[in-house]
Amino acid sequence: MHGIVLFAHGARDPEWAKPFEAIRDVVRRKRPEYPIALAYLEAMDPPLEGAIASLVQEGASSITVFPLFMAQGGHLKQDLPRILEAIRASHPHVPIAQESALGDSPELLEAIATWVLARIE
Amino acid sequence: MHGIVLFAHGARDPEWAKPFEAIRDVVRRKRPEYPIALAYLEAMDPPLEGAIASLVQEGASSITVFPLFMAQGGHLKQDLPRILEAIRASHPHVPIAQESALGDSPELLEAIATWVLARIE
Repeated sequence: MHGIVLFAHGARDPEWAKPFEAIRDVVRRKRPEYPIALAYLEAMDPPLEGAIASLVQEGASSITVFPLFMAQGGHLKQDLPRILEAIRASHPHVPIAQESALGDSPELLEAIATWVLARIE
Repeated sequence: MHGIVLFAHGARDPEWAKPFEAIRDVVRRKRPEYPIALAYLEAMDPPLEGAIASLVQEGASSITVFPLFMAQGGHLKQDLPRILEAIRASHPHVPIAQESALGDSPELLEAIATWVLARIE
């Protein structure tokens, strides 16, 4: 069973989490068979380690972490790989993959450009 | 003539800007008639004030600022309105509107959920 983590930056404002919760809910509605969890780098709970432990407990035998960040900077190039390395040591039998940023997807860039133009036309 | 600002957080890593540059290029390709500029809250140039001054100089008579942030937190609720208030005082004849975050768009949330599932299936 493959698990999905949606990984976001986190913020002090609790409303900040709403879009990420909404994405989780859409994925869950489309494919209820995948265990899915949100996780945050800072300021919000759970951190990545807790989210992955929950998915493993639910029976996930492999996991993909999707960073819901627009672009790759220090958080995705340094922080996330470092955090994942420590987590992999705690779950040696569960392969954990790191996906690229939202902004690395040409379809999503196109969707955002379309959204921009729809708002002014 | 309506101007478009794509407003992003900014980061120390210069590669971080690539997705935002790509979105600007897609919008420009689709609608070359709109003056468009990137702007950053911190760590990258130009800041919002410079981007808006350029668009006004290019002849924009109204401007929409699109925050390319996933969610609304302190940056969009406090920092951006405060910055815009000061900029509006410098351009009293140019209406400047602030759009909502990417994550407030149900279509974009759906597109992100679809992207997540496409990557694991």
